[in-house]
This record gives sequence, structure tokens and C-alpha cells, in this order.
Amino acid sequence: MSDVRAISGGVTAPAGFRASGLHCGIKASGKPDLALLVSDSAATAAGIFTLNLAKAAPLLVCEEHLEKSGGRAFALVTNSGCANACTGPQGMADAREMAQLTAAAVGCRVEETLIASTGVIGVNLEMDRLRSGIPQAVAALSDEGGAAARAIMTTDPFPKEHAVEVTTSVGTFRVGGMAKGSGMIEPRMATMLGYLTTDAAVDQALLARALTEASRYTFNAITVDGEPSTNDCVFALANGASGVVIDEGLYPALVDGFRAVAQELALGIVRGGEGATKLIAITVSGAKSDADAWLAARAIANSLLVKTAIHGGDPNWGRLVAAAGRSGAAFVLEGARVQIGSLVLFENGRPFDERAPQAADYLMGKDLQIEVGLGTGGAHRATVWTCDLSAEYVKINAEYRT
Amino acid sequence: MSDVRAISGGVTAPAGFRASGLHCGIKASGKPDLALLVSDSAATAAGIFTLNLAKAAPLLVCEEHLEKSGGRAFALVTNSGCANACTGPQGMADAREMAQLTAAAVGCRVEETLIASTGVIGVNLEMDRLRSGIPQAVAALSDEGGAAARAIMTTDPFPKEHAVEVTTSVGTFRVGGMAKGSGMIEPRMATMLGYLTTDAAVDQALLARALTEASRYTFNAITVDGEPSTNDCVFALANGASGVVIDEGLYPALVDGFRAVAQELALGIVRGGEGATKLIAITVSGAKSDADAWLAARAIANSLLVKTAIHGGDPNWGRLVAAAGRSGAAFVLEGARVQIGSLVLFENGRPFDERAPQAADYLMGKDLQIEVGLGTGGAHRATVWTCDLSAEYVKINAEYRT
Repeated sequence: MSDVRAISGGVTAPAGFRASGLHCGIKASGKPDLALLVSDSAATAAGIFTLNLAKAAPLLVCEEHLEKSGGRAFALVTNSGCANACTGPQGMADAREMAQLTAAAVGCRVEETLIASTGVIGVNLEMDRLRSGIPQAVAALSDEGGAAARAIMTTDPFPKEHAVEVTTSVGTFRVGGMAKGSGMIEPRMATMLGYLTTDAAVDQALLARALTEASRYTFNAITVDGEPSTNDCVFALANGASGVVIDEGLYPALVDGFRAVAQELALGIVRGGEGATKLIAITVSGAKSDADAWLAARAIANSLLVKTAIHGGDPNWGRLVAAAGRSGAAFVLEGARVQIGSLVLFENGRPFDERAPQAADYLMGKDLQIEVGLGTGGAHRATVWTCDLSAEYVKINAEYRT
Repeated sequence: MSDVRAISGGVTAPAGFRASGLHCGIKASGKPDLALLVSDSAATAAGIFTLNLAKAAPLLVCEEHLEKSGGRAFALVTNSGCANACTGPQGMADAREMAQLTAAAVGCRVEETLIASTGVIGVNLEMDRLRSGIPQAVAALSDEGGAAARAIMTTDPFPKEHAVEVTTSVGTFRVGGMAKGSGMIEPRMATMLGYLTTDAAVDQALLARALTEASRYTFNAITVDGEPSTNDCVFALANGASGVVIDEGLYPALVDGFRAVAQELALGIVRGGEGATKLIAITVSGAKSDADAWLAARAIANSLLVKTAIHGGDPNWGRLVAAAGRSGAAFVLEGARVQIGSLVLFENGRPFDERAPQAADYLMGKDLQIEVGLGTGGAHRATVWTCDLSAEYVKINAEYRT
């Protein structure tokens, strides 16, 4: 048995990790745009990378490095403001140089570095900024992770970091994390940039398994706009500094710790989604299969009509039924059911519109629970977190580059 | 060989059709909410109905009637303001009564009527309004189709009607049509409400084939918000009043006529999409298969980030590449290509960002052409029409019921 409790801090809460964040000059706004995370000893490392076939250069370099190093890393460097995606051979050369600069400044092998970029697609990195910035980022390393969490942000309204302490029968270890959103967020993969650190000792295969398992119900169960990006990735680093060694027996404790941190970060991404004013948990029940439950939950969570209705505080349950009905999942209208908060608005083919005013009151809240039953007699369920769609989302994305 | 030329009018342009539109009291706004289309002689009839599993009551009744009558109809009645969807047994009873009222007032058999409803989901029809309105609609029938085209509107900013005259070696016939959008529009099916009339004589099997073929590249190739609705249907009525009999030899002329009218109506739906300010033709080329071309074109056409960028006049071609890359279609980044108007912005893995200012000028237009090459070496193509996404869309849908 293990106990998981929240503690303050983020990626540097586990022992033996340091981080920094600063402005190196990529963002014209002068905001922080370079983050560095370093483990004092060699860490085992695992990553999950986007399923988008237009995969960005830094992800290709990370896959090569993890292969070559056997899943071992000292440093993870991230720039924001430029995605280094769709940048051709120059983009690959720039990504490799970004890794070399980091290896030289930190003092490790090139394949022991991981790199990530986030921002505008199709623009080349300004390498001069990184040539001077990366050594500065090494000089600025500290036990405080907040500056790194801020430096990976693009349109995020607030930084997202979280940490927990996991107490087991053989000792205590910590898990920390940071993440950024907040557009091009969709759940068919590890979305956005996410970073988990732990001072437990974990072999690479177990680390990769725990990362995938923890991501499934957290980073992979969120959506802002249904757009899996070219740069999405989630990393886990485990440096063993706590002395706790994760074996099969302790594996569930590691997953618990990862999941606790990842869920907090993932919900933070949705709360901070572009233009978002509400966090909405969409649960689909009564599905014929697990796949159907996820399919319907994602269709509802990405429905513009559902997201705009909730933005307007309108308990328009018909849009929930319509989205479920066209999702591709098995669906039986006569058995379908819609519940908003604790209010059942549609059941067994019958609307309860007299409850609409109460449901409208509930939708004034910021943290909403909606359940849609598919009416098939099946018992499968899935929950996807989404946010409302506001005019502010349109404004942000119509003006992103201009 | 046949010649197709546009003429004025809509559903009543072909001989032997009359129509009317009026306010019977379903819409609180006082706007027209009841439309009637009648053929003076028995017409062959065909329909395409939504693939949404939450199918509305009037569609179920139409399917029954077409089956029972062998595809023959005199009257097609439509109310707007209430979708009669997700309304359970009461909704079915109301849809049947709506057909009976029409049959009694027009003087035909119940199974020779077709019915359609559009508006809010989950609200029961106010039958009293129809009981008095339908006889009034029969009394108001005339050769002018404009009132009917206005009475089927919900959030549409303008009515959509069109007509053509088709001249063949054996004589001339006409095709007319009307349609309504303008939310819950997505192309995996016959979207929205669409009505085609012709005074050619067409047997039912040929009529159904022509309707499906004409819809594929018109009604089924548009999207506003990726939301196939519970009430989507397209109807065709052929009454033979022109004396031209369509056989296999003249079938292409019928499809040409249907397609000309359906395309004009379909593009009208997109131009009048909720909050739309621009009509955008998204062509995908270089696809490995026809299915892949459609898959990628739809993914791009429904991408919130693409639609908001174009709304803002931002030639953010990276979002086009990202949408193609995550569409599920085969995609090779190194061979991919993006063209906005006549400007190539990305080709063979290389961005041409110096052309961005010219592309931004082009995007100030209202009628835009965008082509994305998937880079697979394949030769399949597809075009989907979409509109931009504006803050006005959010406003309309956040406030639809309130």
C-alpha cells in the first residue's frame, strides 16, 4: 500500500533535479522563452510523442536520442515561441544544434539530452538566441521550478506545476511535473508538453509503462479544440536520488504518483485552455465497448455546439444527444439519458424540460459534470475533460501571428 | 448533350409545382415558420436522411411513407423553430398528425405526404399552430417559391433558392430547389434541409440515384461546424409536367441539372453559415485514395485553428499542414504542399514565408481557394467547402435558446 499526498513545487520537488527559465530573445514580447531541466545524476527517461504525421524536428531528435542512449538523460531543454515544425532540413539541423549546445553547457553526451519546442509552426529557430541563452540557462539552474514552468508557456494564462510525495513500505519518493497548453489540444495521444520527474529509481521499461498508463486517463483524456499538434510530447525522468527502487511490487505506487501529478497538470491545461471559462467533465456511460465510450465522450467534448451552449449557460441537452448520436458509437435513442450535475434532463426518450432553469443555474458554475448514457445496455464508461468555447478563443486564434 | 442555364426562381420554377410560406405561431419572433410545397400531379419522390442515430420523428415518418407509397408524393410540409427531435412517442404522434393534417388539406393520401422539421431539439411541436396553419398554407399556395424558402430558415441570414433550365435533344425541363442551413452542418451525409423539384418525368430508382450522385459533390461536400444533425434530409420530387422523360440516355442531363441547383444551394448554406464571413474551398490533392482525399479535406475544413486563422486573415499554413497530418490520411511531410490562392507557401519541406504578406492580402477576399498536397505521390483529389469561424458563431450558439 502507498500513500500519495500533494506537496508544493513542481519538477524540482523530487531530489536531484534543478531547473531554470529565462528570456533568451525568441519571443518578441520579452516573456520567458527558454526552460532547462537537469538531473544531477543520470536519469532513466521515457517519452510519448505526437501521432500527428507532420512531426516536428525536436521530436524526431528525441526519438533518436532515447534509442541511442538506451533511455537515459541528464538534460531537457525547451524553447517556446517557435515550434520548429515544418521547417525541413534546416529545422532538423537546428534541433540537433540545440541538443549539442545543451550537452556542451551541461557537460553530458548529446544523446543524453532531450529537446522540445512549442509556438508558431513553419518558422525557423533563431539559433543565435539559443547559442547565448542555453549557457545562461545552465548558470541560472536552481531548486525552484517555477521559472521553467513559466518559460514553456505560449498562450497559457497561468503556469501549470504540481508535485506529490508517495510513501511506501520501503521508503518515500517524490513525483513532480510541469506542463503547457493551451491550443491544439486533443486527446488521441499525449497532448501538449508535459514533464514528470521522480527521485525514485525506475528502469526504463517500467518508466515507459508507467508514463503510458498514467497518461491514458490524464493527458490523453483532455481536449481544448480537437487539434493534436505537431509538437505534442510528454517526458518522464527518474533519477533514483530518493534511494527507493521501483520494482513490480512498487509499480502501482509509481503509477499513482504519476497519475496524481499528471491529472492536476492535465486539468490545469483545460482550465487554462484558450478562451476557456469553465472546466467540463464529460462522462459517457452505457456504452457497448470501451472504444465506444471514448469515441462518444470525445465527440461530445469536441462538439462546437455543446461547448458554445455551455459557454452561454444553456442546458441544451439536445446537442449532447445529437453529438452522441453522430459519434459513430452504438447508440439507442429510446434508452439514452442526459444528466447535467444531478439533474436528469432526458431519459427513456422523454425530455424533462421543466428542469432546464435549475440546470441553467448549475451551468453558471466553473467546474461542471455532465453524463450522457448511450442507452445500449452496455456498462462501459469514459471521462474526457474539456472546456467551453468562447469568442475569446476565436479572437486568440484569429490574431495569433498578427 | 445537354445545356444547363440558370433561370430565376426556386422550387416552383419547374412546371406544376406551387408553394407557400407563412407564420403559424411556432416561432416567438413572428417570423415565417411553415412552408408547403405541392405538386399538382403525383410526383416520384426520393429522400436522403441523416446518418445521426438520434434521428428525428419526421424523418422516420418520411421513410415509412416513401416505402408505403413506392416513392410517390403530392405534398411536402416543413416547420421551422422546432426540430421535433428527441421527443419520444409524443414526437412520433405529432409527426404523424402533421402528415394527416397535410393530406386532408391538400387532398391526397397520408403516405403521399412528406414532412420535415428544423429548429430546437427536444421540444414538442405546438400542434394547435399546425392545425390552423396547414389549411392556411394550402390556401396561400402560389407559383412563387420565395415565401417557402424564407419559412424554412432558422438562423440562416438569407434564403437559398436556385433554378436551372436543362435543354436536351428531346426537349427542355427545369430543376428548382431551396435549402436551409446554417448550424449543425457537416458533410458525412445529406446535410441540412434541401429540396429539389423537376418537371421531368423520372422513375423512382433513377430519381434516387440522381439525388445521391448530385448530393455527393454538393450537399455532402460542405461543412459549417462538423455537426451532422438529427434532422438533416434532402428531397427530390419529379412530376413529369414538362413531358420530358428521363431514361438512361438522359440521366446525365438530370444529374447535371440537379448538381447545378444543389451546388448553388450548398454554397449558399456555407456562405450563410452561422457567423461566416468567407466561403473557403479546401482542395486536397496528392492523396493515396479517394477516401484519404475526403478524410483530409474534411479534417482541414473542420479545423478550428484553420477556420479562425482564415477569419483573422492570417496565412498560417502550418495549421493546414498540422490538420492534414493528424487527419488519418496517408501524409508525407517532405512532399507536402500548401497553396493559398495562387501562392505556394510550403513545398518539399520548405516554407516560403516571404510570400506571407501577399497571402494575407488574398485572405482579405470573401471567396477563397486553398489547396493542400498530401505528398504521397497519389493522384486522388477532393474539394470540401467550409466557412471561417468567427466570434459571432460563438455568440449565436451560446445564446440560441436563451
